[in-house]
Amino acid sequence: MSVSIEEIKRLRELTGVGMTDAKKALTEAKGDFDKALDAMRVKGLAKADKKAEREAKEGLIGEYVHSGRIGVLVEVNSETDFVARTEDFKTFVHDIAMHIAASNPQFVAIADIDKKTLDKEKDLIKKELKESGKPDEIIDKISEGKIKKYYTEVCLLEQPYIKNPDQTVGEYLKEAIAKLGENIVIRRFSRLELGEVQ
Amino acid sequence: MSVSIEEIKRLRELTGVGMTDAKKALTEAKGDFDKALDAMRVKGLAKADKKAEREAKEGLIGEYVHSGRIGVLVEVNSETDFVARTEDFKTFVHDIAMHIAASNPQFVAIADIDKKTLDKEKDLIKKELKESGKPDEIIDKISEGKIKKYYTEVCLLEQPYIKNPDQTVGEYLKEAIAKLGENIVIRRFSRLELGEVQ
Repeated sequence: MSVSIEEIKRLRELTGVGMTDAKKALTEAKGDFDKALDAMRVKGLAKADKKAEREAKEGLIGEYVHSGRIGVLVEVNSETDFVARTEDFKTFVHDIAMHIAASNPQFVAIADIDKKTLDKEKDLIKKELKESGKPDEIIDKISEGKIKKYYTEVCLLEQPYIKNPDQTVGEYLKEAIAKLGENIVIRRFSRLELGEVQ
Repeated sequence: MSVSIEEIKRLRELTGVGMTDAKKALTEAKGDFDKALDAMRVKGLAKADKKAEREAKEGLIGEYVHSGRIGVLVEVNSETDFVARTEDFKTFVHDIAMHIAASNPQFVAIADIDKKTLDKEKDLIKKELKESGKPDEIIDKISEGKIKKYYTEVCLLEQPYIKNPDQTVGEYLKEAIAKLGENIVIRRFSRLELGEVQ
C-alpha cells in the first residue's frame, strides 16, 4: 500500500501532526483521506476538519442585493491581493454580482453542469423534437443548437452580459483579465431570492 | 389512481394550464409531480420549472461582507411587507448576517442537520470516548452532553449570539418576534469565505 506524498502533506497541514503520524494514519486507512482524518479526530490528534483547509487564492467576495428581495454573493479570485484591492477589480466583481442578480444563472461554466441535469435536459429536448414530428436526421442537428441555447440560459460565462448584451460574461471576463494583467477566475456564487422554493 | 387536488393546483399555478390538463398529466405520471411537469414541458405546455414557484412569504434578503473576505446572505421571513420594511426588522436581519459571518454555523436549526452528518458525528463522539477508556455506563451520558455542545457549534439558533453571548440566537429571535408582533423565521443563509475548499 503506497500513500502519496501530497496526501501526507495535506493531512499534516490540516492536523498539524508530524510526517510519521500522517503517513501511518493514511496507511491504516488504506489511502482513504477522509477515513484517515476521522481516525485522527478519534485519537484526539486533530480537531480540524476539511472546512479549515484553505487554498492560497486572493480576490474578493462581492455582493449585490436588489430591493432586499434578491441577494447575490460571488467569489472572484485574482492572483495577488494587490490586484484584488484595485478599483477596477472591485468594479468588475460588483458588475458580476449585479449580472447574477438580474440573469439568474444556475452554474458558472458549462463544465459545472452536473451530468444528471444535463442528461435530463438533453432527453427533454429530444422528446420535444420527436413529439413535434421532425424527421430523425435533423433532430440531432436541432438538438445541438438547443443545447447551446440552454448553455446561454443557465451558465454565467455563456450568458449575454447584462450591461452589454453584445458580449458574453465570459468575454467580459477576458477583457478584465487583459486590463488587470493577471488571471481572474469567477469561482462560485450564491443567489437567494425572497420566498423562492428550493 | 387518485391525484390530490393540491398537486393539481400546484401544477396549474406553475404551468398556467387548465384543471383538466393538469389532472390528466398527473394521472398519466402516476402522481409523480416532477414527471408530470416534465411531460408537460415535452408537450410544450409548460416552460416553467420548479424554480419559478414562489411561496407567499414576505421579509428581506440581508447581507454582510467582512473585508471582502467573508460574505453572508440570509433570508428572514416576516408575515407582512409592512414589518419587513421597519428599521427594527432591518437591524435584526443585519445582526443575524453579521453573526453568521463571525460564527460560521452550518445549519439554521437542529432539525436541518442531515441524518448522515449527525450519525457520523455521534459515531465519532462514541469512538472518541471508547478510546479514552471511559466505562460504558457513563459513555452514553457524556455523549448526550457532547451532542448538545455540537449543536451549539453548528446550528445558528443554538449558537451564543455574538453581540450578547448570554443568549442564543434563537432567544434573540424570540425577542424580535415579541418586539415586532408577528412571526419571524430565519429561513436559510449562504456564507462564502475567500479561498475556502468546498
